[in-house]
Amino acid sequence: MNSFGTNFRVEIFGESHGVKVGVVIDGCPSGIALCEEDFLTDLQRRRSGKLGTTPRIEADMPHIVSGVFEGRTCGTPITILFDNTNTKSGDYANLQDHPRPGHADYTGMVKYGGYNDPRGGGHFSGRITLGLVAAGVIAKKIIDPIEISATLTEVGGRTDIDECIKETMQKKDSVGGMVSCTCKNVPVGLGEPFFDSVESEIAHIIFSIPAIKSIEFGSGIAAAKMLGSEHNDRIIDASGKTETNYAGGINGGITNGNDIEFRIAVKPTASISQAQNTYNFASGQVEPLEIVGRHDACIAVRVPVVVECATAIVLADLMLRAQ
Amino acid sequence: MNSFGTNFRVEIFGESHGVKVGVVIDGCPSGIALCEEDFLTDLQRRRSGKLGTTPRIEADMPHIVSGVFEGRTCGTPITILFDNTNTKSGDYANLQDHPRPGHADYTGMVKYGGYNDPRGGGHFSGRITLGLVAAGVIAKKIIDPIEISATLTEVGGRTDIDECIKETMQKKDSVGGMVSCTCKNVPVGLGEPFFDSVESEIAHIIFSIPAIKSIEFGSGIAAAKMLGSEHNDRIIDASGKTETNYAGGINGGITNGNDIEFRIAVKPTASISQAQNTYNFASGQVEPLEIVGRHDACIAVRVPVVVECATAIVLADLMLRAQ
Amino acid sequence: MNSFGTNFRVEIFGESHGVKVGVVIDGCPSGIALCEEDFLTDLQRRRSGKLGTTPRIEADMPHIVSGVFEGRTCGTPITILFDNTNTKSGDYANLQDHPRPGHADYTGMVKYGGYNDPRGGGHFSGRITLGLVAAGVIAKKIIDPIEISATLTEVGGRTDIDECIKETMQKKDSVGGMVSCTCKNVPVGLGEPFFDSVESEIAHIIFSIPAIKSIEFGSGIAAAKMLGSEHNDRIIDASGKTETNYAGGINGGITNGNDIEFRIAVKPTASISQAQNTYNFASGQVEPLEIVGRHDACIAVRVPVVVECATAIVLADLMLRAQ
Amino acid sequence: MNSFGTNFRVEIFGESHGVKVGVVIDGCPSGIALCEEDFLTDLQRRRSGKLGTTPRIEADMPHIVSGVFEGRTCGTPITILFDNTNTKSGDYANLQDHPRPGHADYTGMVKYGGYNDPRGGGHFSGRITLGLVAAGVIAKKIIDPIEISATLTEVGGRTDIDECIKETMQKKDSVGGMVSCTCKNVPVGLGEPFFDSVESEIAHIIFSIPAIKSIEFGSGIAAAKMLGSEHNDRIIDASGKTETNYAGGINGGITNGNDIEFRIAVKPTASISQAQNTYNFASGQVEPLEIVGRHDACIAVRVPVVVECATAIVLADLMLRAQ
Repeated sequence: MNSFGTNFRVEIFGESHGVKVGVVIDGCPSGIALCEEDFLTDLQRRRSGKLGTTPRIEADMPHIVSGVFEGRTCGTPITILFDNTNTKSGDYANLQDHPRPGHADYTGMVKYGGYNDPRGGGHFSGRITLGLVAAGVIAKKIIDPIEISATLTEVGGRTDIDECIKETMQKKDSVGGMVSCTCKNVPVGLGEPFFDSVESEIAHIIFSIPAIKSIEFGSGIAAAKMLGSEHNDRIIDASGKTETNYAGGINGGITNGNDIEFRIAVKPTASISQAQNTYNFASGQVEPLEIVGRHDACIAVRVPVVVECATAIVLADLMLRAQ
Repeated sequence: MNSFGTNFRVEIFGESHGVKVGVVIDGCPSGIALCEEDFLTDLQRRRSGKLGTTPRIEADMPHIVSGVFEGRTCGTPITILFDNTNTKSGDYANLQDHPRPGHADYTGMVKYGGYNDPRGGGHFSGRITLGLVAAGVIAKKIIDPIEISATLTEVGGRTDIDECIKETMQKKDSVGGMVSCTCKNVPVGLGEPFFDSVESEIAHIIFSIPAIKSIEFGSGIAAAKMLGSEHNDRIIDASGKTETNYAGGINGGITNGNDIEFRIAVKPTASISQAQNTYNFASGQVEPLEIVGRHDACIAVRVPVVVECATAIVLADLMLRAQ
Repeated sequence: MNSFGTNFRVEIFGESHGVKVGVVIDGCPSGIALCEEDFLTDLQRRRSGKLGTTPRIEADMPHIVSGVFEGRTCGTPITILFDNTNTKSGDYANLQDHPRPGHADYTGMVKYGGYNDPRGGGHFSGRITLGLVAAGVIAKKIIDPIEISATLTEVGGRTDIDECIKETMQKKDSVGGMVSCTCKNVPVGLGEPFFDSVESEIAHIIFSIPAIKSIEFGSGIAAAKMLGSEHNDRIIDASGKTETNYAGGINGGITNGNDIEFRIAVKPTASISQAQNTYNFASGQVEPLEIVGRHDACIAVRVPVVVECATAIVLADLMLRAQ
Repeated sequence: MNSFGTNFRVEIFGESHGVKVGVVIDGCPSGIALCEEDFLTDLQRRRSGKLGTTPRIEADMPHIVSGVFEGRTCGTPITILFDNTNTKSGDYANLQDHPRPGHADYTGMVKYGGYNDPRGGGHFSGRITLGLVAAGVIAKKIIDPIEISATLTEVGGRTDIDECIKETMQKKDSVGGMVSCTCKNVPVGLGEPFFDSVESEIAHIIFSIPAIKSIEFGSGIAAAKMLGSEHNDRIIDASGKTETNYAGGINGGITNGNDIEFRIAVKPTASISQAQNTYNFASGQVEPLEIVGRHDACIAVRVPVVVECATAIVLADLMLRAQ
């Protein structure tokens, strides 16, 4: 449900405007140096404040409350908590009656019989990814020397990204984007056959990040137009290095030692400042809804670090599962 | 590893040229009418014999050996076996030294320390999807009245699909394709928050099917170019129906009652009849490799039924998990 | 590892002298009334302060930090935290060199390569059962009207329990005890065949409680001396009620509607105030070890409520798994 | 449900009088020598034919149909099948109306809504342990040099075991027994904290074996009468060896390098040749039931090898989970 992984297991909890959000990481090897400062760089990358992101600034300070002793992981579950300090619950009244388009207000309400926490998206909020980033910071230490790097490559189909976001903000609108991710120094042989292929595991965790609409590995969608004689990556040396990398570093669900490469599409933020006509379950009418509050014009800006951390979690788990 | 699902659990086994391939389905409710004939339509759809598919014809007869009593599921694990009868192992000698490009020969060899079964791709063969189809046939009964339909929409970027495949075969090459899938009559509220979103679960199982390179839900990759004001699906009535379906029937990882829609890219079959230059680990040289044997010119032709069945497995599991 | 359950999943974390201990409960249905006061009765029962238990008194106040909104569970993970306030770490120096007999000091040190938190037993401490009790309080609400009752029936083989404990304390020793548990109003049909039999699930969670040495269901150990003609419980009415209950309410791993009955043996507390001769890894000698600090003379006194709560977790999970 | 294990996973299937019973073993390392003959010794030990066991003799020939290539495990799921050849289904008519006392006829019928396979106990039959033994034979190879030995120590409270069984057979009755198990050469550090303690894992799998009523580790039930000063096992050398072994080789759920020791009680076989008065759901009366067919007078005779194999599965899984 809210956990992921077999030997490196991550359990996420919290609601956007609840008391705390956080994560429990079970199965982390003992003896890894870990302190709260280690999380700050990636948390800062995820944090709001840059162009296109919400003015809501949380302290985002991680508190390690279990699993670390004298600066090292002790092999038992690591719990990291974040306080929710800057919550304005008044902003989110009447979402149950008049659910926001593109959000989980309606699905959450039906799934949980009206008992879901609607404030700020509750458990469906992007704020829940704080725990994912925290777990990913630890995972990155485990998978060293694998290096994962994700970057925003396009916004609204354009590469002048800042400009595109500014224009979007002026229109009181939001805009989508593309994120690319590359993993270097990957050993050959990670991944499990059939259901736990590397693509399956990465896609599984990536689609748990809010707002992701697609994932492509290597050649991706272009593969559908290609011939086998083009697409097959010829091995060129005894390390398994291939001439091309249409496979995206994975054959038969198993890493082949070349870079893992994938790209994802991020939808435009669902919250926009324009009024939107949508159904009001109380009145039984389609009526304009205005969403007050604070929004990211381009949530894709904040996604790369989350993608890196999610990918690190997958690779850490696969490494610990490999015999 | 080779199992999928929480409450409806599928375990796949077998190698392409081993004694049998098959599947165990655990958690199927009791009392569902089931006999061997029920599998034949979907198995036939998956089977070779159509244009662009391999001349290797297996009997593909399913044998139910547990879990069914007097024509109904009895609540205990259902095991379905398929014999491998038409195997020509001689075709696949020396793959360990000179692994085929685009295949799992090299990754399988490294992962399993040289002990993998290389014949016909072993456990990495598409033949293993027989068990997935068998499990999906049962899942379709559980999720009724949900209807899942997948179709091949493009081959090599073209819609004159048969023509494209014929030309490809004349070139002794292979070609990729696109498959679209739609699920109708889906109840609101399936899916689990965060890690077990509907997209996560579907993507997980879809990427276990060999040759899949991408998956997009609803707007998919196009979302990256869109504005929020376009992309947000306005709800228009009390059933939750939306004007557009960029969400692909899913908000916050939970079904919203609109059709689930996704598309996948299938790579060109890795086996082609042309010689390919690739590394020979025995000689230490890049050398031409000729792959004798029987190949599908367009494996995408056989993918739609497998996608339907895989999706049915996910939805059956999510329905049985829903309280 | 530190999680239990399939559809009602409990993740435990914390070290005795760390910052916090706690629990995440995933899969709890939405809409259940829940507030912090609900936990106090069972926490008080578990708490120290009675005869034979440690003078260490923690506030043991539960803090719900996620998963509850306006006094009801919202369907998302429920996190409950407990502060560790009354820790005297100085008491536990040099356990790494001179591990206490009957404790996990040595096994924890080897398993975690010397990085375990040795203070107060760390993650092996009985204090970790706070989270189990908290989860059990919620589980009891789910399984209503099932009633679970566990009681201490013997201490040191005697039924004058208080007297036996007093004598033990005067000897600066500790003593074991027996706990019996009965579950009433159990529906027929809980449990899963083979590996997830009711006995398997209950035994699994019961043996995660520190200090448990045995478990017997129904006739238990006496069954080994009995004849089938005596042991078979004859059904006497259409409700499935049986004349005797040697089965302990379970046949073939499935509940039969009669009371679930089991008994467990609890070992004497490992910490005693007497000096004990045991190996010192630093000196390479068997040497006397004195354990200063605060000890329960009879930990069995605190076990019944933990057993009830653990059993409730199992039954809640099995109920949510039943179709 | 019918699977056990995390990294070494066993899935059991089949009904007593169905087509086949068997097992899929997922996660077995590659490169282990394995052929069908390897199973015969333990299968023979489990097999009927000795004093006190049923005259039903199955060929019990194992058929490996996946996961083994050229005499070695290939890292993919290993499937082992057994044919059911000697089935007399006529013996088991009308069990749905007049369920046998001490059997799962009634619970199975209710759980599965009347769709269970009642013939010979269906999936609840001891015959299903064939798969457990097969998986255990493989597990024993993985855990080498750990040696597991289980023996029948008492029948009906007596040690003149053959004599006791003969007398029981003459009375057309059945009788229970005690089985002891010891594991030697166990490394320090196996087991996971809290929920996956070694005792939890062993007890879980042992209670999936039909007819088990209790399990005790080390001191077991006697611990309830002991003092801490007696019960604490003093470490006497640098290997962690202890003077006594009341812990049964386990502290804090983790192996301590001393022998793992546990004992179990096996109930008398539920099927006896005497008529028994029990409720007939068709007539609404308590009426005599005669069970024709073939029965073990003392099923405990066949249990030791199953206990060994089940324990080997646990230890193999824990070894593969240990980092």
